[in-house]
Amino acid sequence: MKKVDIVILGGGPAGIAAAIWCKRLGINHLLLEEREELGGQLKQIKNIVMDYPGLNNMVGKDLERQFLTHLDELNCHYDTRITLGDINADSQTLTYLKDDSTNLIHYQFLIVATGASPRRLGIPGESEMLQRNEIYSASVDAYRFEGKHVAVVGGGDRALEGALLLSDHGVNVTLIHRSERFRARMELMEPALQRENITVLTNHRVKEIMGVDRVSSIRIEDEQGGSNNVDVSAVLVRIGVQPNSDFLKHIVELDAEGHIVTDSFGVSSRSSICAIGDVCTKPFYSSISTSTGQAMTLVKHLSTYLH
Amino acid sequence: MKKVDIVILGGGPAGIAAAIWCKRLGINHLLLEEREELGGQLKQIKNIVMDYPGLNNMVGKDLERQFLTHLDELNCHYDTRITLGDINADSQTLTYLKDDSTNLIHYQFLIVATGASPRRLGIPGESEMLQRNEIYSASVDAYRFEGKHVAVVGGGDRALEGALLLSDHGVNVTLIHRSERFRARMELMEPALQRENITVLTNHRVKEIMGVDRVSSIRIEDEQGGSNNVDVSAVLVRIGVQPNSDFLKHIVELDAEGHIVTDSFGVSSRSSICAIGDVCTKPFYSSISTSTGQAMTLVKHLSTYLH
Repeated sequence: MKKVDIVILGGGPAGIAAAIWCKRLGINHLLLEEREELGGQLKQIKNIVMDYPGLNNMVGKDLERQFLTHLDELNCHYDTRITLGDINADSQTLTYLKDDSTNLIHYQFLIVATGASPRRLGIPGESEMLQRNEIYSASVDAYRFEGKHVAVVGGGDRALEGALLLSDHGVNVTLIHRSERFRARMELMEPALQRENITVLTNHRVKEIMGVDRVSSIRIEDEQGGSNNVDVSAVLVRIGVQPNSDFLKHIVELDAEGHIVTDSFGVSSRSSICAIGDVCTKPFYSSISTSTGQAMTLVKHLSTYLH
Repeated sequence: MKKVDIVILGGGPAGIAAAIWCKRLGINHLLLEEREELGGQLKQIKNIVMDYPGLNNMVGKDLERQFLTHLDELNCHYDTRITLGDINADSQTLTYLKDDSTNLIHYQFLIVATGASPRRLGIPGESEMLQRNEIYSASVDAYRFEGKHVAVVGGGDRALEGALLLSDHGVNVTLIHRSERFRARMELMEPALQRENITVLTNHRVKEIMGVDRVSSIRIEDEQGGSNNVDVSAVLVRIGVQPNSDFLKHIVELDAEGHIVTDSFGVSSRSSICAIGDVCTKPFYSSISTSTGQAMTLVKHLSTYLH
């Protein structure tokens, strides 16, 4: 059995920063990522990131390259394309599969940095749409839909921002929200309600996404169960994110939305398991800076127990 | 009277990050710095910074350039070489002097990012030494003192790290600590006690730094008041840092060491005054990442009140 002081799960900005800090403090560590490559949510950021101080005017991929170069220059330890097996929190061990062989590791501390994923509608046609890669960024892809009709689903800032960006580019938007109360900021709500090319439908749910080779229409339903079809060229689902914490459900305390409950250092209800980044940040705000800051605070904190 | 939504005091990494986030969220802001230039503690970092994810292998000045370029590219608002006047927390106004003219500003929120300064011994000869710019970094300047004698004052990690680095380069070190208990980590203490070229003096205080054009000796005193002189070529004072919060002493709550007491968003005991970075981070850890993360969390939090 291999012994590692700190095992980090998840190779997004938070996990990468944790590995960098382990190296900085001389801590034996291993970062594990299930996907082909490290980078996490950075891969999905298609617009310019202007809010990570010191690295302006970069899209997610540029930032990802900077982070990975840093990790490699420091010779941090990581492994990708792994499949996580069991976590035994009592014995502080975990298993993972890599290239058909099972690895058993004993950890002093486990840092969970598995992030969050976009929440799905869970309706017929959605997974087909995603498999066809019909996943759009309002800021980058708006031009594709000029003069066309696009559905935006959700009632928060991201949904409203998306609707406004599309509208700016001459797209006809139907904004569909299941409630009549919006969580979005007022300065987004006001213009959205005034735009001629944005139709707001409250108390409506999308029940199905239709289309053969690509999205062609959606079926929506009102509160009374009345149903009708709307022709659209794309559906942007903006109903929030979901912490990737299912695998810890019976191991540490989670809040109602699935965030790992941590103290101000990042330690969960079980002292050998910690969490940083979007899997736990509630009630704070999500950003690359906050994730890397949390990583530093936590690793420095854990280092006082390791030496 | 000028009205500004968020006034930021202090142009180090925390203050710069706060200005960037204000711009990002469209908040009317002004960053004020008393010194000639922005950059704060980045200016003093002479060794390679390996722990700000995405920007590896840079000294403080390189990082400073990256941060300032970012600030300028976003057209953030700032003013340097100012002298802060009064803060009237009830009317939420402050004055500052710039080029002989007094400016009066009304703020919605004041973000204090004035950082911390190295704690001084407060003994004769110390300010003369600092004025002669005899301020050394153990990692960068050790080679200057090979075969010579240097005093390191303090009992924490930074003092021990300094003593070990100098010792590595063949410098004869006298480590002087006023107590017999060290706060430093064990992996620093153990080698320090074993090195032949490190002499550890506990229960001793430095009472005076002597020398005409440069440091030549120090006078130390033991617990019984016995005094003697030690010839040294330099004195490295490593007795911690002091939050730059004196100007807020009777305005917001400070802890025993002078840190501004804040909630988890960064808001002080007075809701219109907030603090980020080394002026408040206790009991957390200080780093560039944590400062920028705090800036983001706080500005995003304040933005919900501004709109």
